Amino acid sequence: MKVVVIGIGLIGGSMALEFKRIDPTITLVGIDQNDNHLDQAMAMGVIDQKGSMKDIDTADRVVLSIPVKASLHLLPTVLDRLPSNALLMDVGSTKAALCAAVAAHPKRQNYLAAHPIAGTEFSGPSAAHLGLFEGKPQILCQAKKTKPELLQWAKAQFRQMGMYLRFMEAEEHDRHMACVSHLSHISSFMLGKTVLEEEADEQNIFDLAGSGFESTVRLAKSNPDMWAPIFEQNKANVVDILSAYIANLEQFKDKLVKHQIEDLHQQMKNTNQLSTILNGIKHNN
Amino acid sequence: MKVVVIGIGLIGGSMALEFKRIDPTITLVGIDQNDNHLDQAMAMGVIDQKGSMKDIDTADRVVLSIPVKASLHLLPTVLDRLPSNALLMDVGSTKAALCAAVAAHPKRQNYLAAHPIAGTEFSGPSAAHLGLFEGKPQILCQAKKTKPELLQWAKAQFRQMGMYLRFMEAEEHDRHMACVSHLSHISSFMLGKTVLEEEADEQNIFDLAGSGFESTVRLAKSNPDMWAPIFEQNKANVVDILSAYIANLEQFKDKLVKHQIEDLHQQMKNTNQLSTILNGIKHNN
Repeated sequence: MKVVVIGIGLIGGSMALEFKRIDPTITLVGIDQNDNHLDQAMAMGVIDQKGSMKDIDTADRVVLSIPVKASLHLLPTVLDRLPSNALLMDVGSTKAALCAAVAAHPKRQNYLAAHPIAGTEFSGPSAAHLGLFEGKPQILCQAKKTKPELLQWAKAQFRQMGMYLRFMEAEEHDRHMACVSHLSHISSFMLGKTVLEEEADEQNIFDLAGSGFESTVRLAKSNPDMWAPIFEQNKANVVDILSAYIANLEQFKDKLVKHQIEDLHQQMKNTNQLSTILNGIKHNN
Repeated sequence: MKVVVIGIGLIGGSMALEFKRIDPTITLVGIDQNDNHLDQAMAMGVIDQKGSMKDIDTADRVVLSIPVKASLHLLPTVLDRLPSNALLMDVGSTKAALCAAVAAHPKRQNYLAAHPIAGTEFSGPSAAHLGLFEGKPQILCQAKKTKPELLQWAKAQFRQMGMYLRFMEAEEHDRHMACVSHLSHISSFMLGKTVLEEEADEQNIFDLAGSGFESTVRLAKSNPDMWAPIFEQNKANVVDILSAYIANLEQFKDKLVKHQIEDLHQQMKNTNQLSTILNGIKHNN
């Protein structure tokens, strides 16, 4: 079986490693516009061969793991070239635009829209590792539009990676992701920006910030090449949730100015319940 | 030597453990309005005895480790009772109001305003442990107002706990803390509130949120009894930095609406430099 992974970064590289672990007989072909990434991936044993788009013509499985704007351009082209029994999946963080782009494609049933919730703030093939997907959710969108035998194969692979599966519509996926993922990234990036602007002397950040600050700005280390297109493609949902967040911050400020401390206390106490929910997340992972 | 710790929580309890480690001959007396905390602390060996305010009269060292609003009320009273060669320090997260409250106190030189940057989202004596302060900053405010021999003793203790010392004015401390700590907590609490409001079904948060979300809302688990008074006492600085944060979020939203994606990309890229600064933080800790 020939598996082609386009984009050998954290997710693409880790998925390549898992495919190889599950079935060591497959041939893993890597495509990446950054040739250094391919060399690294070869050296690390993440891929067997460097490839080109021509490899799509003879592929059994193709994984598209590149920034979502590039995926949107490439997806129909890759699907055009794909053999009729092959499976193409993308693993990007937005789903509605991609599903719409191939909705009427004659090979729509060869495509599976997947989103493994397993990113970190690190990127590139050097960040790839076995076990990244263990205990993590894999969201499959419009899974009924994928040919059953191809879907079965993909589900079996994900389960062998230790993932649990969730199924939903692409629009539903994008709305949830704006809330539980994209907003966190913006809140973190803007927190980092604010603190950098305020603390002219970086030494003060270095000396005075504790682990709490570090935790809240962790996502501000994320790669803008990946995240700018996500915000762009999920604009409507992101603007909605960002507005709700700003409104909550405004009312917090307003209550503080008006000295309604008891209200703030109550809000924080209510929000503490996230602790239970997050312990659940941890437990399940 | 008799050491009295008022408030046997994460910080007070951990400091008691360190004092005992540095000098096992001291008698450690704990005072806490929560009697369960005292029982737990006795059982864990964090304190030698349960005490009362009367113990202040014969104390050599007193640590005030309670929410900052309560500290503000208690600080002058404790200072009144303190023997003339004894040291009283508080370890709260705001400093200007406390320093102002005892500025004209006849025993001002027996007081040291300290802030160990070593909190976590956990609280109570069960969270206390040796090593909490290792590699962490200890901020001392208006240290020149403290009697030199008492200051020397405190500095030696903190250094033996593995802390590095920073000296600053109380107002300066509060301004920096609004920026590198208090804002993070508000951003995290309001992020948690927004997501809880948006995701009516908690199962979705449980199933769909990844480690990034968990990291940004970690501080939303913090204890409101501790944090409401901090925001209250540092209101002016908190309102300033919160306004700057909201303005940054607003401009992000505005640029997204206007499709100025390249600008957003550039902002995120600039903010990525926090990575270097934070690696520094980690290194030093």
